[in-house]
Amino acid sequence: MSHLKEIYEAYLACLNAQDWKLLPEYVSEQVVHNDRYLGISGYVEMLKGNYHDIPDLRFESKLIVSDGDFVAARLYFDCTPKGEFLNLAINGRKVKFSENVIYQFRDEMIVQIWSVVDKAAIEIQLLM
Amino acid sequence: MSHLKEIYEAYLACLNAQDWKLLPEYVSEQVVHNDRYLGISGYVEMLKGNYHDIPDLRFESKLIVSDGDFVAARLYFDCTPKGEFLNLAINGRKVKFSENVIYQFRDEMIVQIWSVVDKAAIEIQLLM
Repeated sequence: MSHLKEIYEAYLACLNAQDWKLLPEYVSEQVVHNDRYLGISGYVEMLKGNYHDIPDLRFESKLIVSDGDFVAARLYFDCTPKGEFLNLAINGRKVKFSENVIYQFRDEMIVQIWSVVDKAAIEIQLLM
Repeated sequence: MSHLKEIYEAYLACLNAQDWKLLPEYVSEQVVHNDRYLGISGYVEMLKGNYHDIPDLRFESKLIVSDGDFVAARLYFDCTPKGEFLNLAINGRKVKFSENVIYQFRDEMIVQIWSVVDKAAIEIQLLM
């Protein structure tokens, strides 16, 4: 396993532990998310918001692809958003969905994140 | 550049040329798309459907990550769906969006595709 894959798995464990004090070990102070500057404080706020909206949120990687300074992952979620999520009224239903996400590292820290959540997959479940 | 990256770029060129006869050079007869068996004939039907719905469709890679038998890419689209796309009424508006996609290769052929299109990004543009 490449070194960045190990670091990435430790980063996911940090998210799942909601250990925000440890996050600066993995995420650059200047982190950019989907081409928008967040900085680590903005990124932590976003993550805290995710956990507020989805108390049983858990990041699980199905596949990790590592190449030079880049890591790509397919993440899998099986969780219960309390109210709205992605502008969809989930209201405590259990939903399963994936996220394909690519990270750029510099000096073993995440500096850019490009994330796409499979909203269409959630919409189909809400119709059932 | 790794060999699979070169093959992947040739595959994208094949899509952009709509050269369906060449596609079996890149895609396995048994290809699976988002965990659903399509087979190459089903995959070609899907692609032809995409071009029917989006006549100016063009696949452009912003980032390609390659690792062993896997390729991950961030694709960028700037196009004009005629009617509905992803259950959204686009009706000839110009939209820009990304797709994060991961491919598994076997013997230099694509055998699995996990794709997520950024539907939320399109929805925002439709509100503007």
